[in-house]
Amino acid sequence: MVNESDPTPLERTLQLVGDRWSILIIRAALRGIRRFDDFAADLGIARPILTKRLQRLVDGGVMAKDLYQEHPPRFEYRLTPAGINLSPALVALIRWGEHHMGDSESPVVLVHGPCGAEFEQAFWCRTCATTFGPTAIRAVSHARGPDTSARTKP
Amino acid sequence: MVNESDPTPLERTLQLVGDRWSILIIRAALRGIRRFDDFAADLGIARPILTKRLQRLVDGGVMAKDLYQEHPPRFEYRLTPAGINLSPALVALIRWGEHHMGDSESPVVLVHGPCGAEFEQAFWCRTCATTFGPTAIRAVSHARGPDTSARTKP
Repeated sequence: MVNESDPTPLERTLQLVGDRWSILIIRAALRGIRRFDDFAADLGIARPILTKRLQRLVDGGVMAKDLYQEHPPRFEYRLTPAGINLSPALVALIRWGEHHMGDSESPVVLVHGPCGAEFEQAFWCRTCATTFGPTAIRAVSHARGPDTSARTKP
Repeated sequence: MVNESDPTPLERTLQLVGDRWSILIIRAALRGIRRFDDFAADLGIARPILTKRLQRLVDGGVMAKDLYQEHPPRFEYRLTPAGINLSPALVALIRWGEHHMGDSESPVVLVHGPCGAEFEQAFWCRTCATTFGPTAIRAVSHARGPDTSARTKP
């Protein structure tokens, strides 16, 4: 049996990136920011908080920390492939914000780089060769036995 | 000029839905849960916290509160169209969690309802008739004058 008190993957995800600063750090990293001082200046975040958030993102596999200068030691932080995979979630949040929380002051729109047009974010089924909306999504529980050792795929 | 100290739409979005409980409430609502007691039982959330979070989501336009019984008064909470529009962000977070934070205990997979196949989440440009990845996204600043009254589209 799955232990109901264990956090779900969504809960673990939110424990890792479900706070405002973590999402803003990832957004800045997607814009190309890598150095501690640049994150601090760009986000206006207190340095102790930035240190903690970056370390948590590194520990969680979302960012990697690289030495770029030895004397004195200086590090840069870049998104891992797992971190880059957060971009659909982040883009969806940014676009929702621009649409529903934006006002006439909002200066930023996300566009498709090559043509400059605003784009859509869709659910796509390769099997049916169709896009679809959220109401067509179903959550499937995988029936599994109580022996966790047998759950590894062959 | 845009006042740099004003929160961006993304920051306002995260202030509204960027916490673990709010996202779990929205996820439960997408699964069809509507009544206060059902949210409390499903999420295992303390009732005062649930009350605060639901009220914030109602105030923010993500959920609407409807009287479904008059004596004694009982309310249900449903997602507004703006709330339903959060589903791409939520689905992206759930899928990222299942992929990167899941383990052999993870029992839930999101599938395309009609065919039962796992689906993709893509960026789609109608102008170019193509899907594309996050590296092809560009943020565009709209140059605007200081007179906000002139910003409404004709």
